[in-house]
Amino acid sequence: MATSGSVPITPALKDELDIVIPTIRNLDFLEMWRPFFQPYHLIIVQDGDPTRTIKVPEGFDYELYNRNDINRILGPKASCISFKDSACRCFGYMVSKKKYIYTIDDDCFVAKDPSGKEINALEQHIKNLLCPSTPFFFNTLYDPYREGADFVRGYPFSLREGAKTAVSHGLWLNIPDYDAPTQMVKPLERNTRYVDAVMTVPKGTLFPMCGMNLAFDRELIGPAMYFGLMGDGQPIGRYDDMWAGWCMKVICDHLGLGVKTGLPYIWHSKASNPFVNLKKEYNGIFWQEEIIPFFQAATLSKDHDTVQKCYIELAKQVKEKLGKIDGYFVKLADAMVTWIEAWDELNPSSASASAATTATNGPAKK
Amino acid sequence: MATSGSVPITPALKDELDIVIPTIRNLDFLEMWRPFFQPYHLIIVQDGDPTRTIKVPEGFDYELYNRNDINRILGPKASCISFKDSACRCFGYMVSKKKYIYTIDDDCFVAKDPSGKEINALEQHIKNLLCPSTPFFFNTLYDPYREGADFVRGYPFSLREGAKTAVSHGLWLNIPDYDAPTQMVKPLERNTRYVDAVMTVPKGTLFPMCGMNLAFDRELIGPAMYFGLMGDGQPIGRYDDMWAGWCMKVICDHLGLGVKTGLPYIWHSKASNPFVNLKKEYNGIFWQEEIIPFFQAATLSKDHDTVQKCYIELAKQVKEKLGKIDGYFVKLADAMVTWIEAWDELNPSSASASAATTATNGPAKK
Repeated sequence: MATSGSVPITPALKDELDIVIPTIRNLDFLEMWRPFFQPYHLIIVQDGDPTRTIKVPEGFDYELYNRNDINRILGPKASCISFKDSACRCFGYMVSKKKYIYTIDDDCFVAKDPSGKEINALEQHIKNLLCPSTPFFFNTLYDPYREGADFVRGYPFSLREGAKTAVSHGLWLNIPDYDAPTQMVKPLERNTRYVDAVMTVPKGTLFPMCGMNLAFDRELIGPAMYFGLMGDGQPIGRYDDMWAGWCMKVICDHLGLGVKTGLPYIWHSKASNPFVNLKKEYNGIFWQEEIIPFFQAATLSKDHDTVQKCYIELAKQVKEKLGKIDGYFVKLADAMVTWIEAWDELNPSSASASAATTATNGPAKK
Repeated sequence: MATSGSVPITPALKDELDIVIPTIRNLDFLEMWRPFFQPYHLIIVQDGDPTRTIKVPEGFDYELYNRNDINRILGPKASCISFKDSACRCFGYMVSKKKYIYTIDDDCFVAKDPSGKEINALEQHIKNLLCPSTPFFFNTLYDPYREGADFVRGYPFSLREGAKTAVSHGLWLNIPDYDAPTQMVKPLERNTRYVDAVMTVPKGTLFPMCGMNLAFDRELIGPAMYFGLMGDGQPIGRYDDMWAGWCMKVICDHLGLGVKTGLPYIWHSKASNPFVNLKKEYNGIFWQEEIIPFFQAATLSKDHDTVQKCYIELAKQVKEKLGKIDGYFVKLADAMVTWIEAWDELNPSSASASAATTATNGPAKK
């Protein structure tokens, strides 16, 4: 006879979510995540030397792609996927067949909440994605859909349905996600503050999206999650997730989708080398001073009613306006178009659905 | 001989901050605040029957104004100060001669942080006001100026100086600040979540400002802190702080000033009667659906380079655009103008300085 203790609990979205991990090493870090990740399918994107063997701990269900696989699957379009940079992870978003993606770096471990309990980061991301966002008006008690919270006095009733959530951006305890100059100035700084909140980044506000601990709804926003051209042969690195974050946020704002940040925390174990980082970042440090005003001012029209159309339009504006800063942006704009072509090739139903949709204020639906 | 323990510590801004308390009862609640408030000067605005005596605990330094005082000091302009509604508190802002104001309701007590320590709410507000805000770009680790935090990777360096902070909006443990319908639906809900964060409300984003636990820089934004026409003889109540919050935020955004929300918490002891509240609120519940889009779309020009000029312009737009909803807004717009006239009369240096200033992107300076 089954007792209540023996009834298996199916983890949320078990067959609807892929975990995407970019890596160059053996995935021993998965041991710590086993209780939370093992039920899910992993997509491992192996960066660097494709002849190297990446060891994955026993018992995980995964597919692994190295550079040879990427070149074989995408052919000439593989040029849009970065090499020797974790930006290559976005290839995993493209080959996934699931509705949701969670992506995590292989130097991220399970964090503990203030009570000492291990945090199931994926479970919190799923909660974030499955309940609405509030991009149109700020709620001072943070996520109004959370247990014990609600909309405060003065919050318009017409906005309490919220918006669909496209992205859930999680944070990091221990090593904070600082740029090279800040790492250099504050080598010992650790993030020890557990802020027990999830909030919507308001419409019209850009934020620095970090790819370390990030979940999103592929059907709602996947094609905007391109991590750009970074690493080998490119004049910039460590701006892959930032680029995706800016593009994605402009498109979410246009399509009326929500973006959340806050919980869950992961434990970020190791600071990357600030000298190496400075070399990767320094162009970005200058360029972002013009890139951010560009995205703040970018506008899309009613005709841009799918993520793909929005993204192609953004690529056009990138070429026109940022191309003046450096030839790199002309190459990047072309790669953005290639990315969408490759996405639609690998995701034909998404492509046809997005071509057919006529909604002006909602996302493409599969 | 003085030991280190006997060296008196002067509380921050002791001579530069007034505490404004609107009330209809004896101020016994001050006993609990004594360790934190006693060094400061109080401005008590007595609402309702002016013949009633309000008892203030021994040892507090205060001035008290009842309705007769307000009428005597403002003459016919006293019409802009609400009666039988805590909106009357803004009279205290006007008669203060200090740079900073903290205002608190008399049903708010000292809260405890998760470690059990009593929270000095005023001290946290002062910290919030004295360090910059970040209205132009979102920082995912919340207040970047706080110890143990900083700007994250991807935050533009040109924006790291931040903006001057005009307003610090604190929160409430125990009884949350809900509207009447939410109170009715969730009579037992209590806010028990201590979120250890202070954040800037981004530029272009409106929020519901609650007057229960609020601090601001009078010199930077005082004239925008008008709490409107509420209570006796008016078709609306409980929108006084909301009104001030909307006007203030539009003006702060225009002048490049920052608004923070989050810490500190106070302990809100007693839920007001939801039936009484519904009667006060119901017009506001309808009207806010039009008021908020109005404020979201309101624009000010370069010529509106002082808080007073911005406020007079907003009054004009309120009359033109919201006057169509209800005659009340025509009256309110007139009262907004009266308020500024009264403010300038009582604060001649602020009026002349603001008339003389030529800055287009900064606040009036005394």
